[in-house]
Amino acid sequence: MIKRRALQAPALALRGLLAERPWLVTSSVSFVVGLGLLFLAPGMIVATLVEWGSSTSHNETALGMGAAATLLAGAGLVVFTRLEPDMSPATVFATVAWTWVGSSLFGALPFWFSGEFGSFDNALFESVSGYTATGSTILSQIEGVGRGVLMWRQIIQWYGGMGMVVLAVTILPFLGVGGLSLISAETPGPMSSRLAPQVSSTARRLWALYGGFTIAVAVALKLAGLSLYDATAHAFTTASTGGFSPYNASIGHFNNLAVEVIIIVGMLACGISFTLHWRAITGSPRAYGESSEFRFYLLAILLTALVAASLNWLNDISNFVTSLRNGLFNAVTLGTSTGFSNASGSNTSGDFAVWTAGAQSLLLPLMVMGGMTGSTAGGLKVLRAQVMAKYMRVGLLRVKHPHVVARVKLGSRALSESVLQRVAGLVALYAFTAFAGTLVLSMLGQDLITSSSGTISALGNMGPALGEAGPTSNFLVFTRPSRVVLMLLMLIGRLEFFAILLVVIAAYERVRRTARVKFRH
Amino acid sequence: MIKRRALQAPALALRGLLAERPWLVTSSVSFVVGLGLLFLAPGMIVATLVEWGSSTSHNETALGMGAAATLLAGAGLVVFTRLEPDMSPATVFATVAWTWVGSSLFGALPFWFSGEFGSFDNALFESVSGYTATGSTILSQIEGVGRGVLMWRQIIQWYGGMGMVVLAVTILPFLGVGGLSLISAETPGPMSSRLAPQVSSTARRLWALYGGFTIAVAVALKLAGLSLYDATAHAFTTASTGGFSPYNASIGHFNNLAVEVIIIVGMLACGISFTLHWRAITGSPRAYGESSEFRFYLLAILLTALVAASLNWLNDISNFVTSLRNGLFNAVTLGTSTGFSNASGSNTSGDFAVWTAGAQSLLLPLMVMGGMTGSTAGGLKVLRAQVMAKYMRVGLLRVKHPHVVARVKLGSRALSESVLQRVAGLVALYAFTAFAGTLVLSMLGQDLITSSSGTISALGNMGPALGEAGPTSNFLVFTRPSRVVLMLLMLIGRLEFFAILLVVIAAYERVRRTARVKFRH
Repeated sequence: MIKRRALQAPALALRGLLAERPWLVTSSVSFVVGLGLLFLAPGMIVATLVEWGSSTSHNETALGMGAAATLLAGAGLVVFTRLEPDMSPATVFATVAWTWVGSSLFGALPFWFSGEFGSFDNALFESVSGYTATGSTILSQIEGVGRGVLMWRQIIQWYGGMGMVVLAVTILPFLGVGGLSLISAETPGPMSSRLAPQVSSTARRLWALYGGFTIAVAVALKLAGLSLYDATAHAFTTASTGGFSPYNASIGHFNNLAVEVIIIVGMLACGISFTLHWRAITGSPRAYGESSEFRFYLLAILLTALVAASLNWLNDISNFVTSLRNGLFNAVTLGTSTGFSNASGSNTSGDFAVWTAGAQSLLLPLMVMGGMTGSTAGGLKVLRAQVMAKYMRVGLLRVKHPHVVARVKLGSRALSESVLQRVAGLVALYAFTAFAGTLVLSMLGQDLITSSSGTISALGNMGPALGEAGPTSNFLVFTRPSRVVLMLLMLIGRLEFFAILLVVIAAYERVRRTARVKFRH
Repeated sequence: MIKRRALQAPALALRGLLAERPWLVTSSVSFVVGLGLLFLAPGMIVATLVEWGSSTSHNETALGMGAAATLLAGAGLVVFTRLEPDMSPATVFATVAWTWVGSSLFGALPFWFSGEFGSFDNALFESVSGYTATGSTILSQIEGVGRGVLMWRQIIQWYGGMGMVVLAVTILPFLGVGGLSLISAETPGPMSSRLAPQVSSTARRLWALYGGFTIAVAVALKLAGLSLYDATAHAFTTASTGGFSPYNASIGHFNNLAVEVIIIVGMLACGISFTLHWRAITGSPRAYGESSEFRFYLLAILLTALVAASLNWLNDISNFVTSLRNGLFNAVTLGTSTGFSNASGSNTSGDFAVWTAGAQSLLLPLMVMGGMTGSTAGGLKVLRAQVMAKYMRVGLLRVKHPHVVARVKLGSRALSESVLQRVAGLVALYAFTAFAGTLVLSMLGQDLITSSSGTISALGNMGPALGEAGPTSNFLVFTRPSRVVLMLLMLIGRLEFFAILLVVIAAYERVRRTARVKFRH
C-alpha cells in the first residue's frame, strides 16, 4: 500500500514541533535533500536486517551506521532548513541534481563501511551507478560480498528508478525539459505553489504503478522457483531498468528460461512511459496501440532481436532457439538500458561480446536510443529519435518541393518550433557530450573502443560497455580518474543533461555575483 | 587562363553543326553526362602523354583507349540528346548525381585496361574514391603502377574537386540544399533559364581561383625541390583536398619540412569557402576575419593540433618539434578531409595510428566536421556544426528563461525555421547513414572499429580510417561487397546526401508510374 503524504508526513511532524523557529535557514535545496535522505533510511534499515539475518556475512554494523548517519543528516537538514516560498526553475533543477548527489554520497556509506569495495571513491561509483540505474559495477567477485550489502545495492537502484519516474513525468515537463513536454506541448508558466499539489498527486499514482510492477515481477520470479531473496533483489533492478544483480553471472546465474521471460516482460513494461501505462490501465487499453512512440519502441527491439538472432544462428554462434532466446534478452536489456547479462559463462552466446560484429553493431542504435520518455529507462529516448527521423523526412521533402511548408508531426499534432529546437539541442548536446567523454576517457588511458562504448553506456545509463568493459567484465578496468568522469556522465545522462549544466551555470553566476559584491565594498 | 564558355563551346559547335535534327532525344541527364565526359577527355590525354614519355612503364594503350572511349561516349551523348527547356530540382539533382557516376565509370577504364588494379570493381573503387576526393586506395604497392596511370589518378581528384566547388557554390544553394543556402537565405524560386547564366559566370570565377591555387601549390612545391611530376601530382590532390599520392608513404615519402608546410597551407586554403576567398581577393580582405565559420574552422584545427602535439610529446611518442610538425599536418589533413599521410615509415609518429588514444580521439570531431561550406572539403561542414552548437545554447537558455524566445543566430542574422530544420535534418541523416553504414560493413565481416571508422571516412570523403584500414594500410582489407558499400557512402557524402536519395526517390516514382500505366492498359 502506498501511504498518502509519504513525503510530507515526517517533515510536517517535525516542523510542527519546531514551528517557525528563527534559526531556520531558507534553502529549498537543503530541505529537499534532507527529505530524500529520510526517505532512503528505511531501505538501509531493511538491508541491515537482511545482513543481520544472513548466516554467511556480518556487516550489519556497517549498514546500521550508514542508516544512522543518513537518518541524522536527513533529520538535521529538515529541521534546520525550510523551502523557499517561490522556486525558480533553476532552483528546482539544482534541488533535483543535489538530491541525486546527496543520495549517492550517503548511499555509498554502507559500501564504504563494509570494507568490501576498497576506497570511498569505489563505493561512491557503485552508489552513483545504482541511483542512476546504470548498473555498471566495480566488483570483480560479487558473490564474495555480504547479502545485506548486496541487497542495499539492489534497493538503491529501485530508489533511483522511482526518482526517475517522478522526475521525468512530473518535474521535468513543468520546466519545459524532457520528452514529455512534447506531448503536454504547453510551455510552463511560473512555478511556485502550482507545482507542489500536482507533483504529489501524480507522484502517488506513479509510485503505485511502479510498486505494482515490482511486486508482480517479484511474485512471478518466486513462482518460477527463485528464493525470496533472489526474486526481490531482481524485481528491484528489473522495475528500475537498472541491471544490478547479486551474482557475477547476472541472470545467466539461473540459466532458467522462465526467469528470463519474466524479466524480459518486466524490463519491456518498465521501458514504457508510465503515463501511457496509467492511461491504458484507467480505462483506455487502446492507448498503447495509439502511441507511435510505443509502436516504434516495440518494433525496434523486436526487429533487432530477430535479425541479431538470425545472424548468430547463421554464423553458428548458437542453435536457432538459443540464438532467439539470447537475441531477445539482449535486445530488451540494452533497448531498455537495463544492462542485465544472461551469459551463463564468459564464452556463451548470452554474452553479446561473442556475437558476430554485425549482430553487435545492430545493438548500437538501441543502446543510444534507450527506452520511452517517462519511463525508468535511460538513453536518448525513442521520442527524440522519432523527431530526428521526422526532421530527415522534412528535409528531403523540402528539397523536392521547395514551396511546401512541411511540419514535423507526431501522431496528429504538429510540434512547435520551440519544441523541435529543444529536441535538436538535446541531441546535439548528447553527441557533444559523447565526443567529450570519449576524448577525456581516452586521454586518461583507455583504448578507443572502451572509451567510446564506456561513454555511451554511462550517458545512457546502460551498464555494460564493449572492449575491456564488456558484459562479463567490470569497471575497475577504468583508471580512478576515468571512473570519476564516468560518474559524472551517468548523472548527466540520468538528469537529461540540463540539470547538471544548470547547476554549473548557477554556481558560476553565484561566484560572479559574490565577486562583484566584494569588489563594490 | 580559363576559357570563356569552356562548358558550352564544344556543345554549341557540335549542335550548330547538327541543329534541330528530329532524332534528338530530350534528356538533360544524358546531355550533361556527355558534356562531363568530353570535359574529362583532355585529362586522360595528358595522362596518356605522361605514360608515353615515361621510361619505366608502357600503359599508354590503356590510357589512350580510355580517352577514346570517353570522347566517343561523350560526343555521342551530346550529339544525340538535348537539354529540357525547364528543369525541375529533381532533374538537376539527378543530372549532378549521374554526372558523378558516369565520370567514375569512364574514369575507371584506364585503371581497368592497365591491368594494374585487378578486376573492374577495384578500378571503379579507385575512380569513385578519386572523383569524390576521398583518397582511399585499394593499391598495396602504389609505386609498382605506371607514372601515367598514377597521374590520371591524381587528375581525377582534381576534376572531382572542381566539380565539388561548382556544385557547392552554384547548384546546391539554388536548390536550397547545402550549407551556403544558409547565407543566401532566400529559398530558391523556379529554376529554368535563371540558373544557367548565373552558374556559368560564377563557375568561371571559381575555376580561376581553383586553378590559381593549384598552380601556386605546384610552383611552390617545385621551388621546394620536387620534380615537376611530383609537384603537379601533389598540387592536384592538395587543391581538391583529395589525398591521393603516387607514393605509398604519401607526403612522408619526401620527409621534407618545406613540402609539408606548403601542403599544409594549400590544404587549409582549399578547406575554406571559395566564395569567401573571392570576396577577400576582390577588395575586402577583412572578409576572412568577419566570417564566424572561418574563425571556428581555424581555431578547431589549430587547437586540435596543439593539444595532440602536446599529448604526443608528453607521452614520449616523439620530441616536441616533431610532435608539433606531425600534429599540425594530421590535424589539417583530417580537418580538411584531405587524408594525406606523412608517416615516413609504418611506425613513425607521422602516422596517427601510433599516437596515444587521447590524441587519436581528438581527431574524431575534426573527421566528422570536415571543412567549410563551399570548399572542396568533405564532412558535415563547419557551419552545420556551428548551427548544432547554437541549438545547444538555445536549448539551455530556454530552460533557464522559459519566456525568452531565443533564435539561432549566425553572425548578426537569425536563421529561419526552415533553414534550421534542414540543417537538423541533414545532421540526423548523417548520423543515421553512419549507423547504417557501420551496421552493413560489420555484417559483411569487418570488425567494429574498422566498420565505423571506414564509414565515417567514406561519408566525410576523408581517406584513411582506423583499425585495419589505417593511414599506412589500404582498402583491400574490406571485402568486395564492403567496398561497394563504401563507394556508395563516398558518393552520398560528396553529394551532400540529398542527390543520391532523390535519385532513388525519382527512380522509385518512375517505376511506380510505369507500373500504374501498365496495369491500366
